Amino acid sequence: MVLKSESDLADLLGERWVVNKPEVVKKYGEEHVNTCYELVAPEPAEDCLLVKPGSAREVAEVLEYAGENSLPVFPRGGGTGLAANAVPDRPGLILALERLNDKIEVDETNLTVTCGAAVTLGDLLAELEDHESLYFPLHPGDEGAQIGGMAASNAGGVRAVKDGIMRDQIRGLKAVLPTGELATFGNPDGTLIKNNAGYDLMNLMIGSQGTLSVIVEVTLELKPRPQQSATLVIPFDEKEEAFAAVPDFLQEGHIPMAVEYVDRGQIMATADDLGKSWPADEGEGDLMIMLTGAAEEDIYELAAAIEGICRERGALNCYIAETAREQRDLLEVRSHILPAVEEDVLDGIDITVPRSRLAEAMRGIENISSEYGVDIPMLAHAADGNLHPFLMHEGDDPEKIPDYYEDLKHDLYDLTLELGGTVTGEHGVGSMRKEELARQYSEREIELMRRIKRAIDPQGILNPGKIFPDRVC
Amino acid sequence: MVLKSESDLADLLGERWVVNKPEVVKKYGEEHVNTCYELVAPEPAEDCLLVKPGSAREVAEVLEYAGENSLPVFPRGGGTGLAANAVPDRPGLILALERLNDKIEVDETNLTVTCGAAVTLGDLLAELEDHESLYFPLHPGDEGAQIGGMAASNAGGVRAVKDGIMRDQIRGLKAVLPTGELATFGNPDGTLIKNNAGYDLMNLMIGSQGTLSVIVEVTLELKPRPQQSATLVIPFDEKEEAFAAVPDFLQEGHIPMAVEYVDRGQIMATADDLGKSWPADEGEGDLMIMLTGAAEEDIYELAAAIEGICRERGALNCYIAETAREQRDLLEVRSHILPAVEEDVLDGIDITVPRSRLAEAMRGIENISSEYGVDIPMLAHAADGNLHPFLMHEGDDPEKIPDYYEDLKHDLYDLTLELGGTVTGEHGVGSMRKEELARQYSEREIELMRRIKRAIDPQGILNPGKIFPDRVC
Repeated sequence: MVLKSESDLADLLGERWVVNKPEVVKKYGEEHVNTCYELVAPEPAEDCLLVKPGSAREVAEVLEYAGENSLPVFPRGGGTGLAANAVPDRPGLILALERLNDKIEVDETNLTVTCGAAVTLGDLLAELEDHESLYFPLHPGDEGAQIGGMAASNAGGVRAVKDGIMRDQIRGLKAVLPTGELATFGNPDGTLIKNNAGYDLMNLMIGSQGTLSVIVEVTLELKPRPQQSATLVIPFDEKEEAFAAVPDFLQEGHIPMAVEYVDRGQIMATADDLGKSWPADEGEGDLMIMLTGAAEEDIYELAAAIEGICRERGALNCYIAETAREQRDLLEVRSHILPAVEEDVLDGIDITVPRSRLAEAMRGIENISSEYGVDIPMLAHAADGNLHPFLMHEGDDPEKIPDYYEDLKHDLYDLTLELGGTVTGEHGVGSMRKEELARQYSEREIELMRRIKRAIDPQGILNPGKIFPDRVC
Repeated sequence: MVLKSESDLADLLGERWVVNKPEVVKKYGEEHVNTCYELVAPEPAEDCLLVKPGSAREVAEVLEYAGENSLPVFPRGGGTGLAANAVPDRPGLILALERLNDKIEVDETNLTVTCGAAVTLGDLLAELEDHESLYFPLHPGDEGAQIGGMAASNAGGVRAVKDGIMRDQIRGLKAVLPTGELATFGNPDGTLIKNNAGYDLMNLMIGSQGTLSVIVEVTLELKPRPQQSATLVIPFDEKEEAFAAVPDFLQEGHIPMAVEYVDRGQIMATADDLGKSWPADEGEGDLMIMLTGAAEEDIYELAAAIEGICRERGALNCYIAETAREQRDLLEVRSHILPAVEEDVLDGIDITVPRSRLAEAMRGIENISSEYGVDIPMLAHAADGNLHPFLMHEGDDPEKIPDYYEDLKHDLYDLTLELGGTVTGEHGVGSMRKEELARQYSEREIELMRRIKRAIDPQGILNPGKIFPDRVC
């Protein structure tokens, strides 16, 4: 089958763009999760073929061919995912979008940018350096992420507090349906604010993780670039107080761009590792709060209001970084936490709870940590209620998954769901969390999703084995 | 059939809640469009039965019964719609949600309110008077609109510029599926900011106009109440200049709560009619701009910036209303435009164009007006690109639809679509615009919507005859 496909697909795309070299195919079948959480991430299936269409039309031709030949298709963007969503679980075609990277059109009048699916976050940020007044607020971390993949996975990240997640930035999409037809969703001109004609299929495609369509072009909203910024570092004697302070200032309408929580131990070790300093060294952990505004006095007012509320909640101090350089240094340390500990991390969890229940979630996680007698270091996008507890390698054998791993993970999920949370706030379900979906939703809710999957992809060729729990297949 | 259903349904709901009196049933089969645009709106079908379930569970029972007996079901909220979306086009059950009006729970910590489907906009605003710090930004006009209907129709209105339309306010829904199952979408606690588990069915339900589910409960986000406000009235010599000014100030990041355009003739006549004054009397029309902010100086800065940009575009003056009373008076005059002319209006159009093309749309509408030799007065939510041109009764017989009506309407739609617009910005498709959907979308895009409809409502019992064009049925 694969041999026949290979020559057929070479006829469609050109020989150069159909690859069967096992080590190359394997590399394209892996994503960041395979290096990051190597032991617990699934290995890509063997016997896949890698195809690299060069246009939306060629993507459509590949899908049409796959449909005719009942071949599974696994779309792949920048490979920066943490849910094993682009990792093929059976033989099929790995559809790399990387050649759809040349279109990047900024529309200053309408405050939009239209990007080919494979334009990376880094490309976009570089392009916007030439447009001083414009700004793309989201920054999910790895700048190698592709805009198409960020749309398909509804990326989140640090800067979602003020301007929302990927879904909130998207004005229009072009995507190829599993049946090989090119469709437009929302407003691909990116310029229409209100549209009530028919069903909202755009939002259905966003976050559907390549199971309903292959996104080939995305139109994003841009914002006027904030003229001023500052970063606060606010240490707290106890973690719970830090988390309790967050809803307090948000409810009063003081909205920063980002609110991160960092553990004292981790952040100091990371700063050391980088040879940088970190302003706070007192207490159990810090809120790192990034502020933006139109004028300097807006920043000072916002900073003063937030500091006041945090001090009422027992904050020990408030450090402010004002120069661009100081702020960049702080962000660099924060961004380096994961790389610094990555070697010792077994799995990174992505739970989200209502932000009013952050302090309870923290207490629960500490209880679980004591119960199992293991350390659970944590990062948190605190204002979004999005917690990333890390399960660490413990014991003598770093090549072995500890016995308690599944139980501990499920205890964390149970805690999350009891608090009205979700098993994945931003990383998505992919392969890694599909059994957890059935913990979160009722059978009828999952069945509804399945019915939609079948309606749009009747043959089930697009990214099979993802999102839906196997056991009620 | 109806007779048998009547007794069966009386067993389910109690006799009092099953109504067959023709004049009552007819009243519940009509919506605002039937008084407003009487000649062109469809009459409700005869032989319907009116049912009034008292709980989500009873809604589920009615749908289950309807499914077993293949009875069409027409959900009805406040009846304030302008798309004949709640008007039954065949015999069936009119499902009035009106008894689901007792739950209205404000959560001050999480800045949300959870409402039964039949809580009206007026009820919500009254409830929020007891919560001084909280505020619901949207105001689509008629305060008799029910929150469930506003969600099902993705309502828009005047105040969408800063905080978006209904879709942007909704955090969670409970809805009954056509198969009689109660499902939750999004985050019915309303407290979860990020959730990437599975498909986004909540946004699919919003704006689906009762064709995919019956919404029984809605959780809305609330905002901190702005402490200061002011209203500007800015007259322009020519309409086109008024429209051209709008993208200019929005692009610079000066974002009002509302930006309305009013024709000089209409607004003066309306003010007269009410015995009120209107500040501007020079030029062809005005922008009426509502500003909100945290502090007085924010308002002054915003007002000064907008005035400056408008004057560069040829604004003749800038009047500012600062007291609550002056602002209320202006809004009252603006809100009375439609009631004042309603008797002479044949149809109200709801097109939206990219806001950068507003001036072109205006020129096009004026050309059409000259070509047909008829007056086309207009209201516009200018910052949203949302235009409401009114087609008027002309000629001797007010009981007769003018011959040119269909042609003129289609010319307006053609103009809109050429400019990259939509046939309905906020009122929805319903019965009134379903043939236009096929002008806007390709066959494959409509087929995709149909497939979703069939996946969720395989028997097609829920609000049949709406949204989808008949001719490709």
